[in-house]
Amino acid sequence: MGTVVACSTPFGSSGIAVVRITGNQSHKITSLLIKKPTRINKHNSPSLFSLIDVDGVVYDQAVVNFLFAPNTYTGEDLVEINLHGNPVIIEKTIALCCSYGATTAPGGEFTKRAYLNGKMDMSQAESVASLISSKSILGAKLSYKNLNGSLLENILNIKNKIILVIGQIEFNLDISEENLQPNLISNSLKTINSCVNTLSSAIEGFNAVNVLTAGATVVLAGPTNAGKSTLFNALLKKDRAIVSEVEGTTRDVLENTINIDGVPCVLKDTAGIRKTKDVIEKIGVRKSNEEILSADLVLYLGAPGSVLSSENDNVIYVHNKKDLGWDGKEYDISISALTGENLPKLKKLILKRVSSGFSDLGFIITSQRQLSCLVSTEKQLVTAKNSLLSSSGLELAVEDLNAALFCLDEITNKTTKDDVLNTVFSSFCVGK
Amino acid sequence: MGTVVACSTPFGSSGIAVVRITGNQSHKITSLLIKKPTRINKHNSPSLFSLIDVDGVVYDQAVVNFLFAPNTYTGEDLVEINLHGNPVIIEKTIALCCSYGATTAPGGEFTKRAYLNGKMDMSQAESVASLISSKSILGAKLSYKNLNGSLLENILNIKNKIILVIGQIEFNLDISEENLQPNLISNSLKTINSCVNTLSSAIEGFNAVNVLTAGATVVLAGPTNAGKSTLFNALLKKDRAIVSEVEGTTRDVLENTINIDGVPCVLKDTAGIRKTKDVIEKIGVRKSNEEILSADLVLYLGAPGSVLSSENDNVIYVHNKKDLGWDGKEYDISISALTGENLPKLKKLILKRVSSGFSDLGFIITSQRQLSCLVSTEKQLVTAKNSLLSSSGLELAVEDLNAALFCLDEITNKTTKDDVLNTVFSSFCVGK
Repeated sequence: MGTVVACSTPFGSSGIAVVRITGNQSHKITSLLIKKPTRINKHNSPSLFSLIDVDGVVYDQAVVNFLFAPNTYTGEDLVEINLHGNPVIIEKTIALCCSYGATTAPGGEFTKRAYLNGKMDMSQAESVASLISSKSILGAKLSYKNLNGSLLENILNIKNKIILVIGQIEFNLDISEENLQPNLISNSLKTINSCVNTLSSAIEGFNAVNVLTAGATVVLAGPTNAGKSTLFNALLKKDRAIVSEVEGTTRDVLENTINIDGVPCVLKDTAGIRKTKDVIEKIGVRKSNEEILSADLVLYLGAPGSVLSSENDNVIYVHNKKDLGWDGKEYDISISALTGENLPKLKKLILKRVSSGFSDLGFIITSQRQLSCLVSTEKQLVTAKNSLLSSSGLELAVEDLNAALFCLDEITNKTTKDDVLNTVFSSFCVGK
Repeated sequence: MGTVVACSTPFGSSGIAVVRITGNQSHKITSLLIKKPTRINKHNSPSLFSLIDVDGVVYDQAVVNFLFAPNTYTGEDLVEINLHGNPVIIEKTIALCCSYGATTAPGGEFTKRAYLNGKMDMSQAESVASLISSKSILGAKLSYKNLNGSLLENILNIKNKIILVIGQIEFNLDISEENLQPNLISNSLKTINSCVNTLSSAIEGFNAVNVLTAGATVVLAGPTNAGKSTLFNALLKKDRAIVSEVEGTTRDVLENTINIDGVPCVLKDTAGIRKTKDVIEKIGVRKSNEEILSADLVLYLGAPGSVLSSENDNVIYVHNKKDLGWDGKEYDISISALTGENLPKLKKLILKRVSSGFSDLGFIITSQRQLSCLVSTEKQLVTAKNSLLSSSGLELAVEDLNAALFCLDEITNKTTKDDVLNTVFSSFCVGK
């Protein structure tokens, strides 16, 4: 693996920016950036250096920390450069590193190398991603648990149980298939059932965990001028969307996250749905319909059964403008975005509809990939159960159980295929 | 001064975020965040710790660096926490610090404390700001020079010259005002003139330096549908602005920076100027006019002398849509934003109009405050010259020269008034 460089902090002006370089050339390349590269052979000893351009002129001073393999995040030689947070300085530093032999790191490259160098397993690498992207502190806590090895432990428990069952069956097969140990089948079934139950809980819990980490998408929809943007601002408690009395004011989909009792809701304000000849507004309306389709919940500010032609059926029909004294009997809730009346009630209703009552089961999964591994495992275990119940199915059952083990192993696998590798790490931000 | 906390990296999702805490309670407060706060009494030794919420549950693991006064940026005890770059984790950490006794730091607080604790003078503090905000690497290099003491040295040279003149005059006044040393007046005038010349060059150079650090603002203006957004995208070489054939597509002022031969130009696309009844478009047109007024240069895509009613006279009249075969004789330049014809020529013209041929004079100033200090100094020196030339003006001249010294001192002053202090540091980003 070559030496790569990336900025690990968001792009923009700030006090500090962190550029990281990993690979066996990282120390050499960094020393070329430094005016007087002395004292650079000490592990984890951040020092102030002047950074120089190719013309030898200093363009920034930075705190540089040289780290030596294997005691680094990636397991390779690594350098952290704390620059002044100026985009041109960041770009200059990365460009210089590249001219000295580094290449720019794609998203997730640092964690991918940590995985490839045995610093963490695949499930832990995914936990890093969900720790960074988690939209609630509870989601971060759950992610940290898995990063700390909780998922690994849970997987190991199930693996041990399955291996035990396989061992007992094979022992019997070795002696005599006709004189089975008493209770072999029933004990095996019991153990497998307990595994299946554990897996089912984790699988069922995934959606709840996902709401805590990714947030629930709540889309505000409805005809033009129904007060969607006013409600959006009222829920956010700030003026994010431009509100005007002109129909069709909102063209782009606006997005912001609110936190209802610790559950992050990604609130999206959409263009009002109406027939329009305005080319740009038409694009807006099409986008609105797409958002409605993919939402976890739709707040529809219009009469139930009226215009909403979408296939999404998790809808709260909101009767807005209660202050104008309208009747809203057929609606799910009647509010006034303007005066704030019944907004707390609406929030409670949103919470009820998006969170299916999460409780920490101890066995937490945080990625779609982990979910499908568990689903496959469960499927193999159910097949194993059927094999055990059928006549002369012991050998088949062992095969099924081995297949289940294989699926489980994929969660933490150290020999994952390239395409899985790329899928997992491509979702990371650059610089991690 | 109390203990303050801030995130020193831009807000957003990223690999790393850096939260910094400074003040005499910073170590104690941080130790409350850490699960097992051991090994925290070693200066500059970054270590991995688990961060805990008030309920004792770990929500992130972070590299924490404890730094001891006075060997820190601020001169106070300071802690740098390298978190995972997740906004909810950043907010949680800052909230916990505040609940343990810290307050959030306003912009520039860290550098302000560095200044107040004698770690840098006022001109160096300003250099930090211009290093962070500089829009070109050449601007960063100039800022670094001043941070490294270059401005300080230049000021000192002038101060020494003035002090010398004062000394010589006072020596003469002490002996006898009637028997003046030969050449006292002419030598004094010579020295003062050399100081005035140096200051004048620095003052004249300010605009050129300012273009390198702040960038030149180039506004695209003109009637609707003149191809402003097409030119904007062509200059940026990407699709930033939505282009459509519908008049008035651009409502907000779009902004992006391009670099022409090292000179950063902040390019602004504006709404087309036309009479409109559309409420929202009207706001756009008003904004356009404001932008035109404050621009360093206007690219006007319309006939010379036609609609542009603004008072800004640095205008390039651009004849666009050359591809349509129009005649553009009365224009400054004829281009085609669509085909790219003559775009390099336009860039050269822009460069010529915005940069007044910067050459590094050695005496660089980077802030408006520094500029006005130099202007006042120059004014006092000119007054001193006049006093010297008038009869019996020696005592007056000494007064003027002392006033000049006072103005010069303000650039680096260690006893600056509160209001100056606040003006300087309020322009900083939070966390620096």
